[in-house]
Amino acid sequence: MTHPFESSTKAFAERWAAWQPRPGKKGKAPSLADWDPGAKPFSQGSKAEDKAAVEALALELDALQNLFYADRRYKLLVVLQGTDTSGKDGTIRGVFGRMSALGVRTVGWKAPTETERAHDYLWRIHQQVPQDGDITVFNRSHYEDVLVPVVNGWITPEQQQQRLAHINDFERMLSETGTIVLKFLLHISPEEQRARLQERLDDPTKHWKFSMGDIEVRKQWKEYRQAYDTLLAATHTAWAPWTIVPADSKTHRNLMIASVLRQVLQNLELLYPPGDPQLAGFQVE
Amino acid sequence: MTHPFESSTKAFAERWAAWQPRPGKKGKAPSLADWDPGAKPFSQGSKAEDKAAVEALALELDALQNLFYADRRYKLLVVLQGTDTSGKDGTIRGVFGRMSALGVRTVGWKAPTETERAHDYLWRIHQQVPQDGDITVFNRSHYEDVLVPVVNGWITPEQQQQRLAHINDFERMLSETGTIVLKFLLHISPEEQRARLQERLDDPTKHWKFSMGDIEVRKQWKEYRQAYDTLLAATHTAWAPWTIVPADSKTHRNLMIASVLRQVLQNLELLYPPGDPQLAGFQVE
Repeated sequence: MTHPFESSTKAFAERWAAWQPRPGKKGKAPSLADWDPGAKPFSQGSKAEDKAAVEALALELDALQNLFYADRRYKLLVVLQGTDTSGKDGTIRGVFGRMSALGVRTVGWKAPTETERAHDYLWRIHQQVPQDGDITVFNRSHYEDVLVPVVNGWITPEQQQQRLAHINDFERMLSETGTIVLKFLLHISPEEQRARLQERLDDPTKHWKFSMGDIEVRKQWKEYRQAYDTLLAATHTAWAPWTIVPADSKTHRNLMIASVLRQVLQNLELLYPPGDPQLAGFQVE
Repeated sequence: MTHPFESSTKAFAERWAAWQPRPGKKGKAPSLADWDPGAKPFSQGSKAEDKAAVEALALELDALQNLFYADRRYKLLVVLQGTDTSGKDGTIRGVFGRMSALGVRTVGWKAPTETERAHDYLWRIHQQVPQDGDITVFNRSHYEDVLVPVVNGWITPEQQQQRLAHINDFERMLSETGTIVLKFLLHISPEEQRARLQERLDDPTKHWKFSMGDIEVRKQWKEYRQAYDTLLAATHTAWAPWTIVPADSKTHRNLMIASVLRQVLQNLELLYPPGDPQLAGFQVE
């Protein structure tokens, strides 16, 4: 199997590596504070140029997904994580919107139901992983299970560590059975979140997206940041790497995610399955 | 949490330990050849006495399962593995047959469907694990995925090792999220299998259980034994122990499994949930 994360061009690999979790200064754990949410490392120049690039990439990704679906040697799981208003929905529209629904599926994760809570927390997640040839996009994911319960003190630090290990084990199993696991953390600044929440309140076409719960979560900004720092340090693995996506700019956010996705799909050296030699020269009458 | 495997009475624990995989002689891996399929370590005396004991145990297990269901703090997964005619169906009838269908469920595993094969091999397994308060009995299990493909050379030795690690990871996750995983290997001799297969051929009421495929598998006896030895060495863990059950005697097989099950359920110190203090003295009119 071609390694989907290691066969990128050198230039791309270096640019990508700068946005993956790494040890913090003086050997400390990595901290999101070390990455600028306003940065534009994949920008092509002006905003207009970036917009045009996203549109061109979305069409390219549509073609690559068609090939991925035909090839059927791999499964692709894309995890989108990020706080409220960080742009998960917008990413799905902007990056995956041109792909065919044939072979692409989005799963949005809400609070677990009673039946889901009566099982282990990975039970509902495992049911929704992609099959051969499919791309599944998780809008939020199992990473919520090491965020919300941690910040609210519903699980002990020991259980948090157990879960981080379970998640690594689970993702390694997926990887070793043919699933490419690609995880994006949409990274916005508190100022940008304030502006976006206010816009949801003030714009009648966006008001439906506002919830008072978002304000409560916003008050726990520091605690969520800490939980994110912990999970980034624990679950950035060779088989399921994180990409930190500066997300204050919506256009650049889409450009960066689409660029990574294209590179990973290109690395797979996808092929249409060979024709049946017995059918060579066969004429349909 | 009371540890379900470590708080047994000393006498029971010693008797049980003798039938769990252990390093073979001179530090070699354990081999099923070291255990006598005709042994009766849990026998109470005559066959009639053992039969009476099984019946009494089955009723006791029914009461314990009712308590387990009411308590709802745990989930119990019972794995029954063993070659054809080793007595998996008979165990379900004899040991679990007196329990209420409310909270007890059997899952029989056949060859995977096309959709199941398009996912990782644990995908269908995870969907069927028990929820809080439930006992689920696997008639065959994920262990088939480190038997059939190994014996037939469909996976490489490296993939076999990966799968054994996945299974340990998966079972540890289940254990750490409240599932007790109890695994029984029904151990019969090739002579006893010959007799039982012949009986299936000769007895019209048993003929429906016979399949020519069983004869093919019987020819691979040695290869299956080796795959079993490998999986026993790799997956006998503190959180999901194996019990080797001598299974040439059907009565004693049931007696032993029921005895282990009773001990494990007793170890949990199950309780009916406390009444609502606000309802003390309340009279239904």
